[in-house]
Amino acid sequence: MTGSAPLRVTVWNEGVHERTKPEMAGTYPDGIHGAIAEGLTGLLGGADIRTATLAEPGQGLPPEVLDQTDVLLWWGHMAHDEVDDALVERVVARVQGGMGLIVLHSGHYSKVFIRLMGTTCSLQWRNTGERELVWTIDPTHPIAAGIEHPVVIPEQEMYGEPFDIPVPDELVFASTFAGGEVFRSGVTYRRGRGRVFYFSPGDEAFPVYYHPQVRRVLANAVEWARPVGPVVAPATAHESPLRDL
Amino acid sequence: MTGSAPLRVTVWNEGVHERTKPEMAGTYPDGIHGAIAEGLTGLLGGADIRTATLAEPGQGLPPEVLDQTDVLLWWGHMAHDEVDDALVERVVARVQGGMGLIVLHSGHYSKVFIRLMGTTCSLQWRNTGERELVWTIDPTHPIAAGIEHPVVIPEQEMYGEPFDIPVPDELVFASTFAGGEVFRSGVTYRRGRGRVFYFSPGDEAFPVYYHPQVRRVLANAVEWARPVGPVVAPATAHESPLRDL
Amino acid sequence: MTGSAPLRVTVWNEGVHERTKPEMAGTYPDGIHGAIAEGLTGLLGGADIRTATLAEPGQGLPPEVLDQTDVLLWWGHMAHDEVDDALVERVVARVQGGMGLIVLHSGHYSKVFIRLMGTTCSLQWRNTGERELVWTIDPTHPIAAGIEHPVVIPEQEMYGEPFDIPVPDELVFASTFAGGEVFRSGVTYRRGRGRVFYFSPGDEAFPVYYHPQVRRVLANAVEWARPVGPVVAPATAHESPLRDL
Amino acid sequence: MTGSAPLRVTVWNEGVHERTKPEMAGTYPDGIHGAIAEGLTGLLGGADIRTATLAEPGQGLPPEVLDQTDVLLWWGHMAHDEVDDALVERVVARVQGGMGLIVLHSGHYSKVFIRLMGTTCSLQWRNTGERELVWTIDPTHPIAAGIEHPVVIPEQEMYGEPFDIPVPDELVFASTFAGGEVFRSGVTYRRGRGRVFYFSPGDEAFPVYYHPQVRRVLANAVEWARPVGPVVAPATAHESPLRDL
Repeated sequence: MTGSAPLRVTVWNEGVHERTKPEMAGTYPDGIHGAIAEGLTGLLGGADIRTATLAEPGQGLPPEVLDQTDVLLWWGHMAHDEVDDALVERVVARVQGGMGLIVLHSGHYSKVFIRLMGTTCSLQWRNTGERELVWTIDPTHPIAAGIEHPVVIPEQEMYGEPFDIPVPDELVFASTFAGGEVFRSGVTYRRGRGRVFYFSPGDEAFPVYYHPQVRRVLANAVEWARPVGPVVAPATAHESPLRDL
Repeated sequence: MTGSAPLRVTVWNEGVHERTKPEMAGTYPDGIHGAIAEGLTGLLGGADIRTATLAEPGQGLPPEVLDQTDVLLWWGHMAHDEVDDALVERVVARVQGGMGLIVLHSGHYSKVFIRLMGTTCSLQWRNTGERELVWTIDPTHPIAAGIEHPVVIPEQEMYGEPFDIPVPDELVFASTFAGGEVFRSGVTYRRGRGRVFYFSPGDEAFPVYYHPQVRRVLANAVEWARPVGPVVAPATAHESPLRDL
Repeated sequence: MTGSAPLRVTVWNEGVHERTKPEMAGTYPDGIHGAIAEGLTGLLGGADIRTATLAEPGQGLPPEVLDQTDVLLWWGHMAHDEVDDALVERVVARVQGGMGLIVLHSGHYSKVFIRLMGTTCSLQWRNTGERELVWTIDPTHPIAAGIEHPVVIPEQEMYGEPFDIPVPDELVFASTFAGGEVFRSGVTYRRGRGRVFYFSPGDEAFPVYYHPQVRRVLANAVEWARPVGPVVAPATAHESPLRDL
Repeated sequence: MTGSAPLRVTVWNEGVHERTKPEMAGTYPDGIHGAIAEGLTGLLGGADIRTATLAEPGQGLPPEVLDQTDVLLWWGHMAHDEVDDALVERVVARVQGGMGLIVLHSGHYSKVFIRLMGTTCSLQWRNTGERELVWTIDPTHPIAAGIEHPVVIPEQEMYGEPFDIPVPDELVFASTFAGGEVFRSGVTYRRGRGRVFYFSPGDEAFPVYYHPQVRRVLANAVEWARPVGPVVAPATAHESPLRDL
């Protein structure tokens, strides 16, 4: 981070499972957001890492928070529909202006991700707590730096193809499951000036966000997604004068 | 079209310039939609080609029209905001289910295109009626079949980079302008089961849609975008049972 | 094939295992090439399908054969080094001029494929006859038309990532193995005017080329790879006159 | 360069025009390589920058030079055929192992570039010293950082499409020429662990390599292409044991 201002990271979690499923307190006593933030804090020295949840004022992302965020992580599952459309548009606009966005697991069905992808983002799933192996497809990608091949996650929800997303700009990881399915589990996109990374491992029922390798992937992804220069307003059309030939 | 049902094509035009700019009657006496439909009719024997405009019931695309459309062409400019959001979602859903979509010129700023791209779709422009040359980048692409290299369009609005779109699945054409600008003028995307082609030549002020080469590009694009099998509902998530290993 | 000349397909096989491993006679009494050609013949009515092997004059591809081939399938394993460099260059030139090429299984290490890819084409492998599942990633791709999701191949050699290939133009299939590995098992590239498809299922020790779904994939791929117009000489640089502006 | 060893850059130039065209001494008194190295030295503080030419022992790239190179720049035109095939294979192997490669202008026809691309790399050309405008297509790409839009090069050889290359991993720049042509002038590829950038501006007859913006592009490209970790041997196939499930 060579002399520049600290990288500002916000870990957003809808936080509904934490309030409605008592058994989650055993796995994530500080919430999914707390576990993710803890992991990032340990790996991204000097970064300014905060958390935000749906129940907070402004759904956790009032302008004074969102406009001070360089990279946003997004975890949601049960309450996608409760996110205000106006907030979705503000998040999308900030991504288009340069903010990095990391969409996690069931966030594939968030309004924000669907809005940025233009597809249904649907997939196949099965929640029997089966083993997931995360294989690196692009070994020189910065997000894969230092990651084991494969990462072994003992218990996970299965996500399988077809995954209805646009063709990724980059396919970084692909996962297999004990049941035999395959999934493009780590994919990147550019939208305007912003970089987007979707990473599927991380169900609320399993302690995936404590996995050292998953934490390393997320820290790598935050570094990769940091804005190039200040985040600006989304691009607009403008008239271009005729140059002097 | 080997024995199958006729390809059903709808040419949608907002049709506002035609009503508000009397000078357009000289260039497009039957509207932009009329000129496009005429061109397709001449090149796609056996296809069922109709037109639709914003002023018609259901904004021209009531369910009985949209649900009977295999490939939709979209021209809009002044009235993007007047298109109902519900219609936009129905068009997007039908694309995701397999309908082909061809977005034309100023349609880059239509709600439908922005919704499918996830970017601002902004660009640079200048309307001095300058010469556009359309060069083929991918000579074996079906949309480029039989197209001159370059296509010479004597007078056009300039569209220039940066064009804020996702990285195209395929870059078929790139244009240059007398003023020196460059533009990715023919790009493809897949969204769900549907194919999308954006083609920039075609301003309301110039008779571009009578140009034989432009007509050939549009006919090629309609053939390329035709659905693979019946158009279905957009994909949805579903639970996948554990197979017998 | 709408009135045009018959599609001319050549199935090339080095044919060394057939001569040196007596146990192969049980699985492939007519050779791997024979089994592939039989499958294509049953599915591509009207196509002109022939076989060729390394031991034949001109290594099976003298000019009078290669120059009359529209789509070439390539299976090799033990004898990659025996293929003449001059023949490799002739095959590459014909692909660049428009011939389709389908590279099979251990053909990933053929001189032709390495020459067209520019990478090592290395991979991980294990030959314990484990189950392979071939999943469709791009359901609307012509090569995937009518293919089950997944294709179940009871016994196969495992091929795993990292697979050192260029980023594919299109990722059509990905496979998983009983041992947990993943592999990009169906990928496409364009090289010059020619289309290239690599498909990994198909070891000499297992009867994979009799599998109805594998046969369907290969027939689809041959149709997809057929040249657009006549196969020509590879492109060359030439001086472009200044146009009249 | 945060504490690591200095980046080692070698600027290779066939250097034949310098010996055979006396008029070049006016434009490039220290050779094209000298001008490029001067530009890089001014912008890449701390890097170890050397030059090499075809006439030197080992054609300028004996093992003790090539094996100590992190990023190689390649300029050639008249003497492509004189480069030893064995050297070509050593350069390709080092790229596959992680060395960055930047291919310049007429180097599109070098053995090294053709070997890495698998296409003819042919293009259209015209040498009348016309104005080239280099437009940024991907404004957030590191190679485009700080680059004007467009870069104006008063006199250049025209290079035009079709440019017979594989579909680029990334299209960074596209150029237009006074005569109206378009060219993909800045494209990236990954080959094995190595990054490859082709940049077309830079003819021997014009002082393009003194242009501050061209120098900035080349310095950006060297930084972008630097290896991730040590350069290793190209990847090879190996047998993967069955893991304990």
